[in-house]
Amino acid sequence: MGLTALIESGMEISAATELLMNVIWTLLGAILVYFMQAGFAMCEAGFTRAKNTGNILMKNMMDFVLGSLFFFIFGFAIMHGADWNGIIGSTGFFEPARLADVDGLFNGLPIGVYIIFHTVFCATAATIVSGSMAERTKFKAYLLYSAAISIFIYPVSGHWIWGGGWLAEMGFHDFAGSTAVHMVGGVCALVGAKILGPRIGKYDKSGKTKAIPGHNLPIAALGVFILWFCWFGFNCGSTTAASTNIGDIAMTTNLAAAAATLAALLVTWLRYGKPDVSMTFNGSLAGLVAITAGCDTVSSYSAIIIGLIAGILVVFSVEFFDKIVKVDDPVGAISVHGVCGALGTILTGIFSPDYTFTIQLLGVASVMAFVFVMAFLIFTLIDKTVGLRVSKEEELDGLDIHEHGSSAYADFNFRL
Amino acid sequence: MGLTALIESGMEISAATELLMNVIWTLLGAILVYFMQAGFAMCEAGFTRAKNTGNILMKNMMDFVLGSLFFFIFGFAIMHGADWNGIIGSTGFFEPARLADVDGLFNGLPIGVYIIFHTVFCATAATIVSGSMAERTKFKAYLLYSAAISIFIYPVSGHWIWGGGWLAEMGFHDFAGSTAVHMVGGVCALVGAKILGPRIGKYDKSGKTKAIPGHNLPIAALGVFILWFCWFGFNCGSTTAASTNIGDIAMTTNLAAAAATLAALLVTWLRYGKPDVSMTFNGSLAGLVAITAGCDTVSSYSAIIIGLIAGILVVFSVEFFDKIVKVDDPVGAISVHGVCGALGTILTGIFSPDYTFTIQLLGVASVMAFVFVMAFLIFTLIDKTVGLRVSKEEELDGLDIHEHGSSAYADFNFRL
Amino acid sequence: MGLTALIESGMEISAATELLMNVIWTLLGAILVYFMQAGFAMCEAGFTRAKNTGNILMKNMMDFVLGSLFFFIFGFAIMHGADWNGIIGSTGFFEPARLADVDGLFNGLPIGVYIIFHTVFCATAATIVSGSMAERTKFKAYLLYSAAISIFIYPVSGHWIWGGGWLAEMGFHDFAGSTAVHMVGGVCALVGAKILGPRIGKYDKSGKTKAIPGHNLPIAALGVFILWFCWFGFNCGSTTAASTNIGDIAMTTNLAAAAATLAALLVTWLRYGKPDVSMTFNGSLAGLVAITAGCDTVSSYSAIIIGLIAGILVVFSVEFFDKIVKVDDPVGAISVHGVCGALGTILTGIFSPDYTFTIQLLGVASVMAFVFVMAFLIFTLIDKTVGLRVSKEEELDGLDIHEHGSSAYADFNFRL
Repeated sequence: MGLTALIESGMEISAATELLMNVIWTLLGAILVYFMQAGFAMCEAGFTRAKNTGNILMKNMMDFVLGSLFFFIFGFAIMHGADWNGIIGSTGFFEPARLADVDGLFNGLPIGVYIIFHTVFCATAATIVSGSMAERTKFKAYLLYSAAISIFIYPVSGHWIWGGGWLAEMGFHDFAGSTAVHMVGGVCALVGAKILGPRIGKYDKSGKTKAIPGHNLPIAALGVFILWFCWFGFNCGSTTAASTNIGDIAMTTNLAAAAATLAALLVTWLRYGKPDVSMTFNGSLAGLVAITAGCDTVSSYSAIIIGLIAGILVVFSVEFFDKIVKVDDPVGAISVHGVCGALGTILTGIFSPDYTFTIQLLGVASVMAFVFVMAFLIFTLIDKTVGLRVSKEEELDGLDIHEHGSSAYADFNFRL
Repeated sequence: MGLTALIESGMEISAATELLMNVIWTLLGAILVYFMQAGFAMCEAGFTRAKNTGNILMKNMMDFVLGSLFFFIFGFAIMHGADWNGIIGSTGFFEPARLADVDGLFNGLPIGVYIIFHTVFCATAATIVSGSMAERTKFKAYLLYSAAISIFIYPVSGHWIWGGGWLAEMGFHDFAGSTAVHMVGGVCALVGAKILGPRIGKYDKSGKTKAIPGHNLPIAALGVFILWFCWFGFNCGSTTAASTNIGDIAMTTNLAAAAATLAALLVTWLRYGKPDVSMTFNGSLAGLVAITAGCDTVSSYSAIIIGLIAGILVVFSVEFFDKIVKVDDPVGAISVHGVCGALGTILTGIFSPDYTFTIQLLGVASVMAFVFVMAFLIFTLIDKTVGLRVSKEEELDGLDIHEHGSSAYADFNFRL
Repeated sequence: MGLTALIESGMEISAATELLMNVIWTLLGAILVYFMQAGFAMCEAGFTRAKNTGNILMKNMMDFVLGSLFFFIFGFAIMHGADWNGIIGSTGFFEPARLADVDGLFNGLPIGVYIIFHTVFCATAATIVSGSMAERTKFKAYLLYSAAISIFIYPVSGHWIWGGGWLAEMGFHDFAGSTAVHMVGGVCALVGAKILGPRIGKYDKSGKTKAIPGHNLPIAALGVFILWFCWFGFNCGSTTAASTNIGDIAMTTNLAAAAATLAALLVTWLRYGKPDVSMTFNGSLAGLVAITAGCDTVSSYSAIIIGLIAGILVVFSVEFFDKIVKVDDPVGAISVHGVCGALGTILTGIFSPDYTFTIQLLGVASVMAFVFVMAFLIFTLIDKTVGLRVSKEEELDGLDIHEHGSSAYADFNFRL
């Protein structure tokens, strides 16, 4: 590439300058990825019912809180500690900063920068699940799951992909986490929602689906805008370096998201007769999730095609899980994060000349299998001990009153 | 300036270092400008009625989506392609990255960075219009307009100002887009709202104005805070370089916005007896729009004066269009973006020693005339073909139900 | 530290490169701190009643507006002008840019960058107070207070701590403003809320507390997420330099906030039987406030402990002021900002090896005494002249209708 030559020739960048520029860029990325928490919280709150709003906000907040603490204490060591047979990291528990070299660096960055960057990614995976399990999960049970994904599930597959594990060794490419973050969250969401069962009223006696609309579309839309905004940090920041290609990454990210939004709009328009608001906004997220794996390596038009496929697929996937599989996923997280995460990772093997389809497929399949089994074990264990689901009465009255003793809209009357 | 001397003397910056710093700064600016979409969406949703909320959110989202795609395919070439007689760009269609030099640079930046930066500016111009045409425009018709501004209107006048066209050649100065972005959007808003006609109930039989208040002031206020936040990216990022004056640009931007807010507050207080919430927040935007043209070149006190003038003018301008011209502009976008955009560009010719009043005036007048004619042709064409306005029944029931089959606040009762 | 050695050895950074990197980093920090205004506005609006929402949004906006203008004209000179006996700055009134050296620098930064950075910090202190005085303060009276804190109160104690005054000389350490910003705001909040008296209905005849719940938890939660996001700019940006430790600062900031949130959750769960939504989100802010003084100097585990203490303390502090002192603080700002600001500053003297407990205590006590006296004088003066509190009728109907002639939710019915 011409730019690289330009940089390497003529005048050089000192190592210290480069380090500081990388620090600025990576930390900016981390800060933006943190703010995805606000995006998820607004999306999930807006797309569910008013009676459960306080509860979903709390789950989103506690996802990040537990993720921050447990990833620091355990997760980082499992993900980035000294590799054990390609499967798991094994050093750095309790004090991950000890993994730094004598200069305080880890993978070329001051270790504090590296840890905060990976902390916010971990917490993103965790928070995907709350939407799918919304409106019927015990708060205490949810906290246990949230701890489990941050301590073990996410770091192990993360080690395979980004921590020098066996998938990294094989050349599996998941640049910013279509699989490592989004599909991991999406598979947990599927297992959790399946074990929980559908919300009361979601299916009638004949098994026919009944739509349960979200209660606050402006905050849901705000959530999507926030997520798109932060995704520039997610994808462009994943260089963890100030490099000349971050603009290209921003371009592929943006074009895929735009194409997916347009595709979802058109599919719903053709299929339901009207352009659907919720699904169109979910289309944006589908495109963002799908481009994440290959945003650094595919062309602009490949990004548009990936986005179009994701935007079409997400509509049919939501229908499929809703009507055929009959898993009740209030916000569509299984399709957006799970299905489109897998899709984007696999398409990277098709659209990028640098990576192979089979290895991409193998990586997706392995991580899917691992997360599926782990999530199944954990959710089943929680279900059999503290119980996963609230009582019928609590569900009908809303979780806010029963679980938290408050209403999210104290001055307003709303339907239960 | 002392700083430049400091930088040029003693120790030099390598070209590669400078390039990377410019990349970081410009991309950060682009990311912030992207997020203006959230600001506009919240503002416009909050300042209109609950029954049309889903629709306005969709319009804001689709503005950005179509803008991203069409500006990439057509708009960038028209704006930044090889100049044809100072009027229009003519190369780079379908694959704008081909405009880069052998090092991958365009105007000194990696072309991906340059394209994404200009994409988000284009989408900002497009999204200004949705507020003025809110609550009565057919969704399909709106999409057609949105495509037109991104494909042709914005890029052509943008070419004149920023793409090496005839206004750039003459020394017209519009640093970050008071005219190129805001006035272009504002003039389209005026033409669109005029052709559409007022909302049902806006004027009584005697022609007297009836206020139709916004339904959600906290999200409208949030929108303004988001826009102010992102305006630092808009104005400071428009250096497209890490330079020592970006703090000064932040200062003029902030002081003008603060002065304009205060002015609007005081004018409404004196004029209506009470400080008006909506108008005060619109005052902030008026100041931001007005300072945008000259934020790099006027002094702090000039910025305050520009802000004060904008904050006073916006109140009278809103009244003028509302009561005299009788154009129904639900969010005041014509005054905020159109009038204050023109104002700020012209005042730059007065307050900056480096630019001349007549050229500034000429630039504003030419762009205004061009956009007026183009917008008139396009909106008329749309009106005569697919039709611009929804039926009376749709308008009374709200666009959400008829256009999208959903409600933005499904759990709440609200007035229609 | 190894990193410093690395940077100093081998290849050097040119002064010009370093300057530009510092400019980028500090301005990014300032931009994020600006956005805290949105966080405070959403928090305060969400945690109070629907009938006063427009009013609280206006107060938040005007805090920033007056802060920007008055800090530019007077405050910066008092805070950063030539020191007079360690007590007050004395030069740079009306034109603070004149304080720059021949290169245009001030404290090593282009002075525009330095002024905007300190402007947004000043406005943050001002805006803390509006929540505590919510739902019963005259708008005009509030504007007078807001001017006073920006012109005099904040700059004087700011001079002591950050402007080369006597506390700075003694080695008092308040890295990003637990005392200089948050405690100053918190003490003003206490004095203001005390002089105002409680809202009608807050205490029954026997003096028993009645909870008055917030009306919109999603926007309140959004406010907390925004504040956490921006706090990375607040704390990491306070290096005012691109340095290798900004990742460590992000880590301590995040861990303390997470620990505090968890602590507040658990304390309310144990104490009230249910995890409280509002208090848990206030716990996040308590942790952020407390870590701010020492975020650059304490270890990760010290940060966690500081967070845990803050998260526990804030619950008891809110109860203490509510039930024992009987000061009505609708959003808990006295406890979050005042108490946890003092706490964090003092704990820095315990957990950091570099600073001493007694000097930290002395600094907190002096600033507290100064601000208490000044706030008492100013609020009393305002009370005796224009009057601090609205009439009973205005309070019962809501401030939006009486003070601003509008409703924040025009399409909805809500309880008064």
